[in-house]
Amino acid sequence: MAGKVTSHDVARRAGVSRATVSFVMNRSNAVTIGEETRRRVLAAAEELGYRPNSAARMLKSGATRTIGLIIADAGISRFDGLIPILFWSIGRSARAAGYDLLLESPDPAEKGNPYTALVESRRIDGLLVQGPRSNDTALFELIESDFPTVIIGTAGHPGQYAVNIAGRSSLQEAVSRLIGLGHRRFGYVAFSGPGYVATERRIHAIRETLAGAGLELPDTAIRHGDFSAESGYLAGLALLDAMPDRTAILAGNDTIALGLLSALSERGLSVPEDVSVVGFDDLPFAGFLKPPLSTIRVDADWQGQAAADLLLGRLGHGDPAERRLVRPAPLIWRASAGPPPK
Amino acid sequence: MAGKVTSHDVARRAGVSRATVSFVMNRSNAVTIGEETRRRVLAAAEELGYRPNSAARMLKSGATRTIGLIIADAGISRFDGLIPILFWSIGRSARAAGYDLLLESPDPAEKGNPYTALVESRRIDGLLVQGPRSNDTALFELIESDFPTVIIGTAGHPGQYAVNIAGRSSLQEAVSRLIGLGHRRFGYVAFSGPGYVATERRIHAIRETLAGAGLELPDTAIRHGDFSAESGYLAGLALLDAMPDRTAILAGNDTIALGLLSALSERGLSVPEDVSVVGFDDLPFAGFLKPPLSTIRVDADWQGQAAADLLLGRLGHGDPAERRLVRPAPLIWRASAGPPPK
Repeated sequence: MAGKVTSHDVARRAGVSRATVSFVMNRSNAVTIGEETRRRVLAAAEELGYRPNSAARMLKSGATRTIGLIIADAGISRFDGLIPILFWSIGRSARAAGYDLLLESPDPAEKGNPYTALVESRRIDGLLVQGPRSNDTALFELIESDFPTVIIGTAGHPGQYAVNIAGRSSLQEAVSRLIGLGHRRFGYVAFSGPGYVATERRIHAIRETLAGAGLELPDTAIRHGDFSAESGYLAGLALLDAMPDRTAILAGNDTIALGLLSALSERGLSVPEDVSVVGFDDLPFAGFLKPPLSTIRVDADWQGQAAADLLLGRLGHGDPAERRLVRPAPLIWRASAGPPPK
Repeated sequence: MAGKVTSHDVARRAGVSRATVSFVMNRSNAVTIGEETRRRVLAAAEELGYRPNSAARMLKSGATRTIGLIIADAGISRFDGLIPILFWSIGRSARAAGYDLLLESPDPAEKGNPYTALVESRRIDGLLVQGPRSNDTALFELIESDFPTVIIGTAGHPGQYAVNIAGRSSLQEAVSRLIGLGHRRFGYVAFSGPGYVATERRIHAIRETLAGAGLELPDTAIRHGDFSAESGYLAGLALLDAMPDRTAILAGNDTIALGLLSALSERGLSVPEDVSVVGFDDLPFAGFLKPPLSTIRVDADWQGQAAADLLLGRLGHGDPAERRLVRPAPLIWRASAGPPPK
């Protein structure tokens, strides 16, 4: 029965016109509905278990009550421990606001602009994009077109709506602390190939701090992984073989660091006695690795919620006061980092 | 090119206004469009690969071209390393078939039936449900109602559409192998509280194999975690404190096993010299733990694709020949399991 209830049934039960039911259910401001009538319609809808047809509601209002989430590089994000946390917090915020969440994970091999297809088919009112590449021209075209979009996980360009964590100062704090302990020869295993905003910025931040102490991060000491532990292991082995004198290696994320710990163990190197390791993200397992991993804490729960709220606010009330929300990402110092060998 | 076609392009090609394109594509009755003009617009849309408004298409066909995915316990699934893999493979299959993927993560604290709300509001054509509880009456009501639904990660009841891995025989193989190595005192740290189909079945399978050798898994030797490494660590400590004589401990998933390894290390116990550990899932990092983790390989990529294909087949062609797809989950024997101490 419940599935077949229409606005007609509700109208009859409430003793109002079908249009009135529609106005009430869609919270339309097009006409003024008396409070008593509104209550009567909602009571009738409740009694009958009426749920407005979303397609009709969508055509009428022009709104889908749906937001899209694009994971820019879904293939490698399969290994990203922050993704499920992000899904969870975005889903919670969307649901609380009465929005659905549409998941898009464009195939990088597909032709065309994935954003345009999604937007022009009018399936969503707004879009969250996690982890775009710096050369994602399609995304930046979309943002130029003023379609409501919020970027997660990179700072974005000035004027763009973006939610990010401020990891730069903590990364530099980690490097400074390692220098202070006596480290002189650093390495870096990125979570991505070249061309990612976050990776490029982090390498720049590390080099800046090292330069302040007269130190360098040579290109040979930088290796690129692909988010997975296996890639961290392989990149770690390659780094250790090319530059066996490194005493401090930073990793692009904690999963990469996990693989790096395995590579160090395989080469007979102890952590932190021979080599210090610092990860990134503070994934829920980081504190339970052996040794517990020094890392930089990314609050993905906050990121998801803040991004969803920013987008939903933009859909509901126009231009929010703040376009770029940033939260500090504190350095979490654990046993994987210490003084270099004598 | 196809992705960038707008109603503007169609209008230009057909030599009409953009509004006319919109009226035709949306089958609006607001104005009268001549038949010849209508055909010209549709031909131009066809030639250019223009994607029509999904709301209009939905009202017209009664189909949303959208499938829903419910993560039954999103709160704890934040820590489940298989979830992003599942998203990725489902998304890929859905996209290949021209379907969108709507993500639902119902709050267990919310009142009402989350499935009914989703289905009755007609936002989806079919539903995938990952990891339902055995007492999820709302789900089983939905399945009874014949709404196209496929369950992922449990065997389901006879007649239900379900995709699962056959982990039971591999779990029993692991227990047999440990018994063969000389282990007599077993422990289990589940990935969930009691009441989960998978957890209950696994405990039953372990006890069955142990009973065949005259051995037991006492209730005190079973501890319940919540997917996270931290819960595995805490449950591991509690188990070790209550029953310090265990020489083989199985974990409900690899993240739990990671926390358990940390607990064992904290109690000064070596793996596998003092205690053997066997996980479940073969998460991408499992082979890079110290020691590399013995575990049971769950092919989440296959699960997601098979479930999506089963559902999409059901939406497209009616009743598929096979309602329950099962793939073996092989035992992966690595260094975390060995003979018990002398």
